[in-house]
Amino acid sequence: MTILFCSAVDDAEAYRRAMADRLPETAFRVHPDVGPPEEIRHVLVWRPPAGLLRSLPNLRGVFNLGAGVDGILATGDDLPEGVPVIRLADAGMAPQMVEWMLHGVLRFHRRFDDYARAQAAGRWERLSVPPASDVRVGLMGLGVLGGAVAEALLARGYSVRGWSRRPKDLPGVTVFHGADGLSDFLAGTDILICLLPLTDETRGILNADTLGRLPQGAAVLNAARGAHLVDADLLALLDAGHLRGAQLDVFEPEPLPPDHPFWTHPKVRLTPHIAAVTVVEPSCDQIADTIRRLERGEAPPNRVDRDAGY
Amino acid sequence: MTILFCSAVDDAEAYRRAMADRLPETAFRVHPDVGPPEEIRHVLVWRPPAGLLRSLPNLRGVFNLGAGVDGILATGDDLPEGVPVIRLADAGMAPQMVEWMLHGVLRFHRRFDDYARAQAAGRWERLSVPPASDVRVGLMGLGVLGGAVAEALLARGYSVRGWSRRPKDLPGVTVFHGADGLSDFLAGTDILICLLPLTDETRGILNADTLGRLPQGAAVLNAARGAHLVDADLLALLDAGHLRGAQLDVFEPEPLPPDHPFWTHPKVRLTPHIAAVTVVEPSCDQIADTIRRLERGEAPPNRVDRDAGY
Ligand SMILES: NC(=O)c1ccc[n+]([C@@H]2O[C@H](COP(=O)([O-])OP(=O)(O)OC[C@H]3O[C@@H](n4cnc5c(N)ncnc54)[C@H](OP(=O)(O)O)[C@@H]3O)[C@@H](O)[C@H]2O)c1
Ligand SMILES: NC(=O)c1ccc[n+]([C@@H]2O[C@H](COP(=O)([O-])OP(=O)(O)OC[C@H]3O[C@@H](n4cnc5c(N)ncnc54)[C@H](OP(=O)(O)O)[C@@H]3O)[C@@H](O)[C@H]2O)c1
Repeated sequence: MTILFCSAVDDAEAYRRAMADRLPETAFRVHPDVGPPEEIRHVLVWRPPAGLLRSLPNLRGVFNLGAGVDGILATGDDLPEGVPVIRLADAGMAPQMVEWMLHGVLRFHRRFDDYARAQAAGRWERLSVPPASDVRVGLMGLGVLGGAVAEALLARGYSVRGWSRRPKDLPGVTVFHGADGLSDFLAGTDILICLLPLTDETRGILNADTLGRLPQGAAVLNAARGAHLVDADLLALLDAGHLRGAQLDVFEPEPLPPDHPFWTHPKVRLTPHIAAVTVVEPSCDQIADTIRRLERGEAPPNRVDRDAGY
Repeated sequence: MTILFCSAVDDAEAYRRAMADRLPETAFRVHPDVGPPEEIRHVLVWRPPAGLLRSLPNLRGVFNLGAGVDGILATGDDLPEGVPVIRLADAGMAPQMVEWMLHGVLRFHRRFDDYARAQAAGRWERLSVPPASDVRVGLMGLGVLGGAVAEALLARGYSVRGWSRRPKDLPGVTVFHGADGLSDFLAGTDILICLLPLTDETRGILNADTLGRLPQGAAVLNAARGAHLVDADLLALLDAGHLRGAQLDVFEPEPLPPDHPFWTHPKVRLTPHIAAVTVVEPSCDQIADTIRRLERGEAPPNRVDRDAGY
């Protein structure tokens, strides 16, 4: 059995070593050194080149080296039908995402940006701040990452609400769902967190209409995908004073072009898609376990629903 | 029975209402309207004027409207002997302190300041960041507030160590104590948190010697008292590149004078003594409960040990 690795952003040698520890009998090739295509049973990929997957006749599993599968699904016809696409679920990313989001929520709740401005102006001035229980944090997306963030926010006493595609029962979280639930969800959200997958239904979902429904003074945190956000709409609402600020990790395109207004906007804080990076060891635990299941003919966990798009 | 309130920074009317709810038979006077001094049995104070406490012959309890008692103990001879001095313990402050400290720890761990500098320079650049388990956060002071912060940091996966006066057993925390334990504690601390009370033993404890024992690149968070820190020593270690940055909430004196270098130092972020403010309702719960105990002749909780100074 042979595994093919193909990613321009991950460390091939680290994956080679970690997979060898877990599946010692398996050969590991790194693209473009594919070898005989019929030998490849599983691929570990991040944005593979067009044509690659189609060229592998005995493929049993396509492993996406990340949680978001918009990139791999966008390869479209190139994805052989019937071959399961598997995504990483948490695999060490959830704690990192919790950190990035907690920092952002605390930044806006405790007004650290306002205090930084006061410091820059040499002003010693106490600002009023509500208790955490009066701050309504709203999560768009209550999956693996959104769920972990919800739990961490509840532990800190925040009032947590969420929005998902299907109805859901999460202890302590007020859950809204579907297109019908969106307005009410937004109207009661002081700090909005986006952790949705990018699908046909969610592309551009952070726009003038939806962000305009947030209460005056709300803040926005996006670490899902840049294409969820209509940049110009966010900027207009920040400039109009409707929104207090934004903390963004993802952009369309990436890297964010040098002349993009986000770089210099005083109410935008950005990081270069680092909220939660893949971690080799737990990722390979998940991948090796799933490869074993697939080879035994079992149904794999974390299989992507291609129709739903995530 | 009459209570006297004396604080320039707390809202007398809010305390009047909250105490009336809890002890309806009790009169409530606000300094300077003391009335007949012999009627005053309990005082709720923050930095009372010299001579006030001595002038009250029937005093049974001195309630400090805060957790730190350095101010009230500094009134020295003015404090009638034998009358218990009671401090607030948590009373709604612990969650706020946890928020302020978590924000600071995340700021340094996840390098948000470095990312802010990269943003200002228009640089899209991923920085290396260790997992939380590799970040050693060291708490000076493991009391009510330090203990709450330790618990929150453990929940986020940090490696937590602490330093207290007496030996202590805290699950998950490596505890050092006393003068002998200080060096080892500091040598293994990447992010230092000060939550000590200000006493003769702890004044100036954050100085060139102690801060110099922290590993290269360490960060310092102080929300205890300004007089714990030797400002010039911190500045020298920041400028020498030994320390990465500081987040400070307390200063000596306060307000921080306009020409103090902290205001403009690029590695110092400051807030105006707001890390954890007193919250009227839980504070009055604690005070009313203790007044009832004192009136029944019972030993009060949270009594300050005047010899230890906290
Ligand atoms: N910035 C970074 O560093 C980084 C790192 C990792 C991941 N991410 C992003 O984070 C995203 C979420 O990851 P995850 O692992 O938490 O995904 P997940 O477990 O698949 O969760 C997705 C959540 O979104 C909800 N959702 C999907 N479509 C929806 C719709 N049309 N309307 C309402 N809710 C919808 C789902 O609802 P149901 O519960 O009803 O299915 C689910 O709760 C990824 O897709 C990726 O884009 C970013
Ligand atoms: N910035 C703000 O907004 C704000 C708000 C509230 C409080 N504070 C400050 O925070 C401080 C701590 O409050 P707290 O309620 O947590 O106090 P606490 O419960 O009395 O805890 C004090 C801790 O410090 C330790 N300690 C005292 N003297 C020491 C010494 N010489 N060497 C080593 N450790 C020593 C104690 O050790 P043992 O456990 O061995 O006794 C204890 O663990 C207050 O005194 C106040 O100055 C600041």
